[in-house]
Amino acid sequence: MGTTQLEPVPEPKYWHLRTVLSEALDSEFSVGEILPNERDLAARFGVARATLRQALEQLELEGRLQRRRGVGTTVAPPRVGVAVGTERHVWPGAADDAWQPADSTRSAPPAAVADALGTGPEQPVHTVRRSRVSQGRPVAAELLYIPDASVPDLTAIDTPSGPARARAVLRELQRLDLEGQDRAVELGSARAEDARELDRLPGAPVLVVTTRYTAEGRTAALSVATYRADTCRLTFGDSGGVEIHHGTDRQAS
Amino acid sequence: MGTTQLEPVPEPKYWHLRTVLSEALDSEFSVGEILPNERDLAARFGVARATLRQALEQLELEGRLQRRRGVGTTVAPPRVGVAVGTERHVWPGAADDAWQPADSTRSAPPAAVADALGTGPEQPVHTVRRSRVSQGRPVAAELLYIPDASVPDLTAIDTPSGPARARAVLRELQRLDLEGQDRAVELGSARAEDARELDRLPGAPVLVVTTRYTAEGRTAALSVATYRADTCRLTFGDSGGVEIHHGTDRQAS
Repeated sequence: MGTTQLEPVPEPKYWHLRTVLSEALDSEFSVGEILPNERDLAARFGVARATLRQALEQLELEGRLQRRRGVGTTVAPPRVGVAVGTERHVWPGAADDAWQPADSTRSAPPAAVADALGTGPEQPVHTVRRSRVSQGRPVAAELLYIPDASVPDLTAIDTPSGPARARAVLRELQRLDLEGQDRAVELGSARAEDARELDRLPGAPVLVVTTRYTAEGRTAALSVATYRADTCRLTFGDSGGVEIHHGTDRQAS
Repeated sequence: MGTTQLEPVPEPKYWHLRTVLSEALDSEFSVGEILPNERDLAARFGVARATLRQALEQLELEGRLQRRRGVGTTVAPPRVGVAVGTERHVWPGAADDAWQPADSTRSAPPAAVADALGTGPEQPVHTVRRSRVSQGRPVAAELLYIPDASVPDLTAIDTPSGPARARAVLRELQRLDLEGQDRAVELGSARAEDARELDRLPGAPVLVVTTRYTAEGRTAALSVATYRADTCRLTFGDSGGVEIHHGTDRQAS
């Protein structure tokens, strides 16, 4: 009796198609160009529509394709590098901040946020909403939670909401000595409100960046920022510019 | 003639179902529990199978569910925080490094990497392959590209490949003075090789972390690390521990 040799697991069909399509994008299409419809593409590559759709989803995940309702599938421009972390620790709203304050309200934050802030479960905190635009397009939406204890001298008689109120809250926060900050990045899906702001459908893949700012030995503010995963590359560090575009080349290695 | 009031865009059906399902996960299921099959779930919530699948995909993207072949859909444990960046800049392979060297070979890197390293298009570089395990499970795979110029005294007579070779290359690299490092994080899909190592299917969503190490005024090494997006939360900063678990709570805000 001979031994049984285990066959290597074959590449899934959609994955092979993804590689073939990726090469076609490089050689036959330019940025912004609309792809043929799914029926024609499936016929050209001799695959089922379901397989084609899986391959298109892969390429969308990698930022190579964009699918928009009413337009179709287009070849995506390279992702935009968006600076998230720098060496220097600064409060949100500092002079060279890339975010635009939109509003500030007072409400009870989600339980996980209240836990992190050490506030009571139903205790309202200042919630500053900001948005970030890069190269003329919305790239991120942020909710910044600030407990009363971090802005003790904030007067209630200011404007009650709107951008002016948001700026007033941030100005007060900046009076604290920032001791440190932690960040976490994870994959998420856009909530309805963020999706609207980012010009996406609810549930679109986003990169969620959570930043905890510490001062006076406690968490003084917590930011939950939602970046479009299709168009953004988050950059961290000294110069904020790792310019590597992962296209076919990387995949071919 | 009256004015036409624009109706707010209604929430897509899958998104509403996602929210309902998410609440059911919190109240009725525990971590590791297997969900009823799609037919039963669709019947229970009175939706089409396609809608159910979209909602399940959302929750998988958010790390709330895991789908495994032969097992079914289970409730996922909270994501594991994996420290990526610290204040201190260190070379890969330094004493407290979380990565295990697996191999080192010499080959021509992908064109985008060669560009970043400033090496010629077909010029071979050292390619160190490392893997990272957290809590007993593979969480990331890395390719670290090091041009000859960064390890000029590396002897060819060492072992030609394998972990010992990888350690020798990293040891040589550490003789350079590290000047700085840049990082970028973006969404990607797992290449076949990485997918195998990470125990995923090719094309699974991953977080791609590209790190450029600079020394002597040039890019001395380039790392492309692929983290499982379903199980990992990447942490950066002082203490490396933002412990916010985004579940229903956050979405309900």
